[in-house]
Formats: sequence, structure tokens, C-alpha cells
Amino acid sequence: MLDIIAFDADDTLWHTESLYVEVQEKFVQLLAPYAGEEKTMAVLNAAEARNIPYFGYGIKSFALSMIEAAIELSAGEIPARQLGQVLDLSKMMVAAPVQLLDHAETTVARLAQSHTLMLITKGDLLDQQSKIERSGLARYFKYIEVVADKTADSYAAVLSKYQVSPECFLMVGNSLRSDILPVVALGGAAVYIPYHLTWVHEAVAPSAEEKGRYFELEHLGMLPAWVEAWTAKRSAG
Amino acid sequence: MLDIIAFDADDTLWHTESLYVEVQEKFVQLLAPYAGEEKTMAVLNAAEARNIPYFGYGIKSFALSMIEAAIELSAGEIPARQLGQVLDLSKMMVAAPVQLLDHAETTVARLAQSHTLMLITKGDLLDQQSKIERSGLARYFKYIEVVADKTADSYAAVLSKYQVSPECFLMVGNSLRSDILPVVALGGAAVYIPYHLTWVHEAVAPSAEEKGRYFELEHLGMLPAWVEAWTAKRSAG
Repeated sequence: MLDIIAFDADDTLWHTESLYVEVQEKFVQLLAPYAGEEKTMAVLNAAEARNIPYFGYGIKSFALSMIEAAIELSAGEIPARQLGQVLDLSKMMVAAPVQLLDHAETTVARLAQSHTLMLITKGDLLDQQSKIERSGLARYFKYIEVVADKTADSYAAVLSKYQVSPECFLMVGNSLRSDILPVVALGGAAVYIPYHLTWVHEAVAPSAEEKGRYFELEHLGMLPAWVEAWTAKRSAG
Repeated sequence: MLDIIAFDADDTLWHTESLYVEVQEKFVQLLAPYAGEEKTMAVLNAAEARNIPYFGYGIKSFALSMIEAAIELSAGEIPARQLGQVLDLSKMMVAAPVQLLDHAETTVARLAQSHTLMLITKGDLLDQQSKIERSGLARYFKYIEVVADKTADSYAAVLSKYQVSPECFLMVGNSLRSDILPVVALGGAAVYIPYHLTWVHEAVAPSAEEKGRYFELEHLGMLPAWVEAWTAKRSAG
């Protein structure tokens, strides 16, 4: 009954947002001569939102938005050398070690024995592929998809590509906006496993009706037992 | 005998390098107070080469390299506002209309009637997908692959994914380095159709032996008749 279990990657299998938060803190320090933390974060967030249609998601888009925000916050007064530091930070992010979340490897290894696993992630193609390789988890996934954005349309395209019907598809991820709500809108199942940090552009408040349509677990280690119980119940019912 | 005809996109089906050259000219003007054209282009080319491992191919990587090169060329003296102009130029590139090469649509439409067509392009996922949609050509391609880089390994992965053997695969493109030599190295066939501009990082000088292993046509309009003649000859031989 369940053809594919798909996982998000960033903040579902490995830490990502914590790296962005660390770099944002350095960015706030860099801009301290021109603006306070609240103003800096507001201008950076606005630049990111404005630039998503041009540059999409990922480190390069974030780097370009930091540079744009720094110019705006300093009214063009920031020395170019300091913008060079933003470039250095973004290269540091690309090269940062992949740090798996607790239970990520054991959970994925266990579920790969009984199910076909897919990885669906969005962002920079090169950066995501590099992280997948360096994570050591690639061998557990039969299919890997890097998409520009995660919407009901992009999930429908993936399901159609692999000829999987939504009722036979389970998505696991940390973003209600990108991993959970678009999948349940298609008629698929979804397990929401919150990460302790949420990027402001991923934050959504689901309606009461939406809340009844997905499952929530505290951490990845609980997933294998949950999948077993849930599939047994679906088969029985 | 021929399962798939695959096309490169940038400078094979639509103009791309001409847009980069146009922006490079504006970048040279922007840096004129600090360096001459030759120096500026040398430093920019070096920055791009250095950044490919971090940022890959495409407009965002190019934008970050222009900013890095501008800081270096001006010894940090360039006003931040002028780096903002580099951001504006890169957004202009993303939003630039897709201009098809001569014969692109008629050639692709005609070959789609008799063959399975694939598009294989490298660069920013979002930007490439947007150009594919806006080109009006997507409907002729059964498969579309955006890859981080075009090497023998990445072609082998695509062929394996679609279970196509190299002898049944023909690649058409304007880059010897990315479209032609990796495919012939795998045992596939390749048609080289030069574009009038070549990015310095795509330029290679093929050996005499390599030159004997691919075909060359002057323009896309010649491709359908060539495919017909070549497949007839292969069937006969």
C-alpha cells in the first residue's frame, strides 16, 4: 500500500538552519555600525523574500541577499572589503561539514530494508548534491530529487515521474509549508518532525482542518515504529 | 538503434553567452577607474574558476564572482553602491527574455516526431527551469535533466537512470568540453554545433584522435537531415 517514503533533507536528516543562524549572527555583527539586530534582520528577511523569485533557495541566494541588505542598511557606506567577508562566510557554509540529526542514519537504514526511499530537497543543485554525497546516506535512497521549490505542483510532477499515486506516498519533513501541507493537499500522507529552528520564510500557521491531516513526531528515531504501526492499521482498515 | 537524442540548451537552443558577454562589458566599464579591460577580465575569469567548486555554474555564481573580482581589482576601494549595480545586472540576466537560436524550434519539433528527445543542461536549477518553460520548447522533450556539471560520470548517471546504452544515445551541443567529449568517451555519438562565442572555461582543444570521434554541423537547421542520413547509414552498416 505504501510505495515510497520520501524524506526532506535540510533540518530533517541533517542540520542546516543552525548554520544559517550562525552566519546571520555574524552578519548582524558586521552591520552593527549601521543598524541594530532587529533592523538588520528585518532588512535581510525582506531582501531574501524579494530575491526568491530571482535566485531561489540556498546559500548563493542567501549570500546575494546579504550583500543587497548590507548595501541598503549602510546606505552604501559599508566598505567593499566587508562585503568580501560575506563572500567568505558563504564559502564557509558551502564547505561546512554535514552534521546528521540524531537517529537519522539508523532510521533511514532501517526503513530502507522494508521500503523504497526517496530524498526530495530544494535549493542549489550543486550544494544539495554535495551534501547528499558527504552525508553518507545516499546509498539508502533509491531516488533523489532536487527541486527548485516544493509546491503541490512540484510534488505532483515527482509523483507522476515515478508513477506513484498520492495514496501510496508518505513524506517526512520539518517544514509544514514545504514538506507537509503540499503533500496532504495532493492526498498523500505526511509526518511532520519539527526542527528547533524555523526559517521565517518557511513558517506557516496551519488551519485546524489542515492540522488534522498530518501526523507529528518528536524526533526521527520514532519513525520506524510509527511507520510499522501505521501501515498495519491501513492494511487492516 | 537510436533511443534518445539529447540537446544541450544554453547556446545550443537559445542564446546565453551573448548575455554574459554583454554584462561583462558593463562590468569592465564599472571597474574602469581601477583597471583596464584585460586586467579586469583576467581577474574575473580567475575568480570564476576559483569559485566553480563552491558555487557551480550559472548566473548566481557569476554574480558572486563579479563581486569578488570587483573587490580585488579595486583593492577594496569600490563603493558598495556600485556592487549593488552588479546585483541589478544579475537580476536583469535572470529576467532576460529567452531568445531561441535560428532553426531551434523547427528542428526540435521535427525530430520530436520521430525520436525521443531529452534536454540536458547545467547551471542554476531555478534559472534553467524558468528558461525551459519560457522557451516554449519544453513540450518537445520527454525528459529534462538539470545537472550540476557535465562530465562522463554525470552522463553515465543519466543514461543509467533511463536505462539507455551509450550506443543508442546522441548528444547535440555547442561545448566540446561539456556536451561532446564526455559523451564520446562513454561510447555515445555527438554532434558539435559551435556557437559564435565560447566561455573561456568551456574552451578546450580536442586531440586529433578526439576530433575523429564526433560530428560537426554549422547550424541546427542541418540536424534533421543529418540524423536521417546517419541513422539510415547505421542501420545499413
